[in-house]
Amino acid sequence: MQVLGLQNEPACSIQQMVHAKRRPGGCLHALSHLFEPRGIAIVGASADLTRIGGQPVRALNRFGFRGGVYPVNPKYQEIDGLRCYASVADIGAPCDVALIAVPARAACEAVRACGAAGIPFCVVLSAGYRETGSVGAALEGELRRAAAESGTRLIGPNCQGLLNLTTRLYAGFGSVFQEPDLLAGSVSLVSQSGGFGFSVLMSCHERGVGFRVALSTGNEADVTTPEIIEALIEDPGTRIICAYIESVADGRRLMAAGRRAIAAGKPLLVWKSGNSADGARAASSHTGSMTGRYDIYRAAFRQSDIIEIFDIDDLADACRAFLGGVLPAGPRVAAVGISGGAGILFTERAIARGLTLAQLGEQTNKVLRAAIPPFGSIANPVDVTASVFNDFALLTGVINAMLADPEVDQLAVMLASMPGDGALRSARAIRDAIARHNKPIMLAWAPSRKRAEAARALLDEGQVPIYESPVRAADAAAWLAGFSAARSAAPAAAPPSVARVTLPADSGPLDEAKSKALLARIGIPAARERVLPADSEKPATLDLEFPLAVKIMSRDIAHKSEVGGVVLGVANLDGIAAAIRAIRANLKRQRPDAAIDGFIVAEMVSDGLETLIGVVRDPSFGPVVAFGLGGIATEALKDVTYRVAPFGADVARAMIGELRAAALFGEFRGRGALDVDALADAIARVSVLAAQEVRIAELDINPLFVRPRGQGVVAADALIVMR
Amino acid sequence: MQVLGLQNEPACSIQQMVHAKRRPGGCLHALSHLFEPRGIAIVGASADLTRIGGQPVRALNRFGFRGGVYPVNPKYQEIDGLRCYASVADIGAPCDVALIAVPARAACEAVRACGAAGIPFCVVLSAGYRETGSVGAALEGELRRAAAESGTRLIGPNCQGLLNLTTRLYAGFGSVFQEPDLLAGSVSLVSQSGGFGFSVLMSCHERGVGFRVALSTGNEADVTTPEIIEALIEDPGTRIICAYIESVADGRRLMAAGRRAIAAGKPLLVWKSGNSADGARAASSHTGSMTGRYDIYRAAFRQSDIIEIFDIDDLADACRAFLGGVLPAGPRVAAVGISGGAGILFTERAIARGLTLAQLGEQTNKVLRAAIPPFGSIANPVDVTASVFNDFALLTGVINAMLADPEVDQLAVMLASMPGDGALRSARAIRDAIARHNKPIMLAWAPSRKRAEAARALLDEGQVPIYESPVRAADAAAWLAGFSAARSAAPAAAPPSVARVTLPADSGPLDEAKSKALLARIGIPAARERVLPADSEKPATLDLEFPLAVKIMSRDIAHKSEVGGVVLGVANLDGIAAAIRAIRANLKRQRPDAAIDGFIVAEMVSDGLETLIGVVRDPSFGPVVAFGLGGIATEALKDVTYRVAPFGADVARAMIGELRAAALFGEFRGRGALDVDALADAIARVSVLAAQEVRIAELDINPLFVRPRGQGVVAADALIVMR
Repeated sequence: MQVLGLQNEPACSIQQMVHAKRRPGGCLHALSHLFEPRGIAIVGASADLTRIGGQPVRALNRFGFRGGVYPVNPKYQEIDGLRCYASVADIGAPCDVALIAVPARAACEAVRACGAAGIPFCVVLSAGYRETGSVGAALEGELRRAAAESGTRLIGPNCQGLLNLTTRLYAGFGSVFQEPDLLAGSVSLVSQSGGFGFSVLMSCHERGVGFRVALSTGNEADVTTPEIIEALIEDPGTRIICAYIESVADGRRLMAAGRRAIAAGKPLLVWKSGNSADGARAASSHTGSMTGRYDIYRAAFRQSDIIEIFDIDDLADACRAFLGGVLPAGPRVAAVGISGGAGILFTERAIARGLTLAQLGEQTNKVLRAAIPPFGSIANPVDVTASVFNDFALLTGVINAMLADPEVDQLAVMLASMPGDGALRSARAIRDAIARHNKPIMLAWAPSRKRAEAARALLDEGQVPIYESPVRAADAAAWLAGFSAARSAAPAAAPPSVARVTLPADSGPLDEAKSKALLARIGIPAARERVLPADSEKPATLDLEFPLAVKIMSRDIAHKSEVGGVVLGVANLDGIAAAIRAIRANLKRQRPDAAIDGFIVAEMVSDGLETLIGVVRDPSFGPVVAFGLGGIATEALKDVTYRVAPFGADVARAMIGELRAAALFGEFRGRGALDVDALADAIARVSVLAAQEVRIAELDINPLFVRPRGQGVVAADALIVMR
Repeated sequence: MQVLGLQNEPACSIQQMVHAKRRPGGCLHALSHLFEPRGIAIVGASADLTRIGGQPVRALNRFGFRGGVYPVNPKYQEIDGLRCYASVADIGAPCDVALIAVPARAACEAVRACGAAGIPFCVVLSAGYRETGSVGAALEGELRRAAAESGTRLIGPNCQGLLNLTTRLYAGFGSVFQEPDLLAGSVSLVSQSGGFGFSVLMSCHERGVGFRVALSTGNEADVTTPEIIEALIEDPGTRIICAYIESVADGRRLMAAGRRAIAAGKPLLVWKSGNSADGARAASSHTGSMTGRYDIYRAAFRQSDIIEIFDIDDLADACRAFLGGVLPAGPRVAAVGISGGAGILFTERAIARGLTLAQLGEQTNKVLRAAIPPFGSIANPVDVTASVFNDFALLTGVINAMLADPEVDQLAVMLASMPGDGALRSARAIRDAIARHNKPIMLAWAPSRKRAEAARALLDEGQVPIYESPVRAADAAAWLAGFSAARSAAPAAAPPSVARVTLPADSGPLDEAKSKALLARIGIPAARERVLPADSEKPATLDLEFPLAVKIMSRDIAHKSEVGGVVLGVANLDGIAAAIRAIRANLKRQRPDAAIDGFIVAEMVSDGLETLIGVVRDPSFGPVVAFGLGGIATEALKDVTYRVAPFGADVARAMIGELRAAALFGEFRGRGALDVDALADAIARVSVLAAQEVRIAELDINPLFVRPRGQGVVAADALIVMR
């Protein structure tokens, strides 16, 4: 990461400098000073050490923090043996952070005082803001202004504080802040939930995963989760970054952080909750009405190589895998164990997670054949059987042979519940093997704790990841392989260049003809068609090829087929007249209010697969492209995938491959492959259109017919909704 | 369970009596004598107590087993202080089980000797049978015959033995059998994997779940997993039954066991692995080629209320939920916690698992409003906030009010990482509340172990389930609600009565016309159609309504559309001639070998949804019915669900509702609902046909058009494959 030193100022990243320039009196302190303050003030310090204002005084004073601890409260001379200051202005020593534990109404003034005293960060523990309703929201606005105007950055309000176990910084309240024995380590956590976030840390502690920084961001009135992640990427003490989020305001900044984390070699694990909280959106397009916000988060995670996790177990297990410190070169896994059942479980899960089973080489097979009894298995997953209990050298030899095999990228060792001396000897063999081969090994092992202490200590010391279940070991292998692949992946192709278009001045839905015309300008052709006037009957002549589709054109109707506004397969001119009559009758019954602007008659595509390309605009992520199976059953089938726009054809091609029905695009039941090149290009073009033209609120091309290879795509219907 | 006492014989269930009658010299001992033997012989006992023949001698002798322990080996007079017998004939005391630890080739003779000595159960630990190849398989056949002929039942071979922690019966080898301190409890386990199965037990032990019986069944040469499950259902010491299976030979017996377990009030948890081991089957039908064996297992589990679990965590977590001993009356859950984040996680997962959020009553709301500060939440999930640290009575009051609410079926309490006195007071409140309200409570709680010992002990004593994560607590709530619903569900409707049909004598695929004729006889109509002879050109006249489909009829072609054998939308007689020419040309190119038996011309259905009904015959489960979206994209969309045949219309209706695209069957985008009654009836009829006519190997009705309500279903194509 690029870091600049400024005159008379601590080092600060470009990112923070840019950010700082935007705020009045902007501070040039990097967030790293928040994590490692020289001194910390507790504003609203309480002499009752069990209260919110008292807990951090006690913990900072007693748990080994080396910086200055400055209780601030005009009511006291001293708290817990520390001098108590009447105001932050009196401190007179370097102080980089102030914890604010005064009532909500008093916090604005406290923040201004901190800013005036040159304290760059205020962590506001107080609650009673946005989370309580409109009065609280107004108060939060004042707090934000107070911070901006006085040149201090704000963490919170309504947060539980911040912890740095490397420097013994216990700057918060709640049960975790009363635990002096928490393991220090290199995992850092940012959480939008206070109580729950810190309880995750406790669970990880119980599983031997140590933390560096953990902080809760509360209402995020100023500093947001993506910004903290950026700072953790630059923090030399952090190797793994975990985030628990309910929502982020700036989704693209989160995505950028994901990409920077990959570049820095730090896995970013994100646990997203609050996914049901966002109700269905009001939308004119099918894409809009069928797209949940969580769909978009998941697409964004995938697109920026953020590792999504779903529970505490995932978090602890993934951390242990990455703390092992070795990455596999590829996706090929092997397993060896003393029980066949475990090997099967491991390999099934590994395959389900996208890994492949290593084909062991002849040299390896020779070693295995010599070592393993006939009732074992020398195929991967290798089963050395319980006979290992009679000869531990066997397991050691097999592990070494398998790891030495160039076909094997990583190895899972299944020890069932092996205790005692056997476990110890296996542990030694495993540590030796890792040192010799520099490939990841993970264990599936569930021994009696008290009969395996020595072996466990040896493995823990070497940070060898141990899982109770082969299934979890396979998950660990998948996380490692996924991260390794993301690190070595070629950068995504640039989005195609798409000429800027002149958009109609209309707001709201554009009619089908206008929508298609706009798409034609970016290179997506529509079926040949004519527009007949609203009072049409049977046309005298028509230069189109039958069969035709006849469709209502009405500014009031977004979904024509739902109101009987579409007749397909019209065979001749008489049929057109009949279709127009039928549509008029349907509308009279179902939508007597709707204006008839005309009728579209269009050639039908008989040799294409119906797909959908759509656009929605998300409050956090901006324009997002949907691609899926099309036609009237789109919403019922829900075979749709998403990406944040813009992107290139390689990403579009990945979207096509992600559909459950992806097989339909290749050779299928007697017909040739479809024009995936043209389709990918169309999807990518729509993504560029969506990103360039901010007035496009929603877009549906449905159906977009994908024709045989070389014959391109054809939009048979389209709807663009303008802001 | 119905149990009969026979003269001079121990009590034995009807099931076992029936089973016993089938075998020559069949024993009438119930499997419960296997679990609680009066005495046990170790044939092939070793004086080296670390070897397979020595480990059980040592464990049975030293870990507190009260029955007789009889080492058998002519080489020794005494082992570990016990008299060693030259043969089982010499024992001269009640002996219900023999462990066989002699080499594979010697085991047959050992089993015969046991049978002759009247020992009803032989547990064969020896390996070297079916798992080693054809020679071993032949040896296993001999072993099976030896047991059957000498009147003893066989567990194994190639198993690790049997454990009963209630009676301290440590009858096996491997690490678990060297752990005298394993928790006794009321969970029993049967596992097809030895080493891995017992390691699961060790994991559960570490999580405080105690076991009664655990045994590994190895190669299942005689006694199978379903039979053991039946015995565990009857075992008064077992409250929860777990099975780890790779495959079962008699799937229907497993399903019957599932239903009996429900009736007995004992949850049956099954963990199925080995799902990728079964390769694709060779099949003529689409149903056959797209159906994996695991799909069928999952359908069978659902159909017989077997609870499928996927990992050790699931097993331990589900056991702890059921050990709580209280079942919810319905699916309505509520959550209360000291952190909002945990409540959100719980409720999202609960809803994803099919539970509903309780709407709290006015009385409850009144209590909550009075107790909870404004920055908390009184809506479900309730957030009492960290202010509980200042007033624990608050949490107690809230828990009681919520449990008293008649809208709440079960309650999750989220304590984050609360330690010490607060945790203890919360634990007391929770135990009181459970006693008072008789509704399940589960905790999401991850405290520092050493600062929460008293609270944890109190909760453990009351068997209150504790989970580290709210997600897991929601899973627990879902298991309880699912089991409760299964217990109180009305019995499934009887399958419809379907007349027996006369089947064609052919084997292999029947042609479309014969297949449809057979379906018509069970009440499933086809589109109106005529068969034209193989040398047809343009027919002179035809009493069908255009448009028509023209299709090849050939005994050699199962999938017509893949070879260009189908033309749709034919508009007139000339079109028929053209279609026939086109099909002939396609066949000449693609399948010049195929005989042309004729051409089917059939009316097309324009107002129906394409579905598929199929049948496959599974080696474990027999006839299985598939239902899903139909048409040529069936295999690409894979929106298919399964049930073991036969079944009634209610089950068929549930299948329809399970499709991802279920919405297509209701009112949809301007058209009315489809004829789900007729469809469900057709699915159920096919299930009866498949069950009655064992010569039907495979069946596809694809597409089956489902027309608007009242207008029934129409088979547009069909393929029946005879054995």
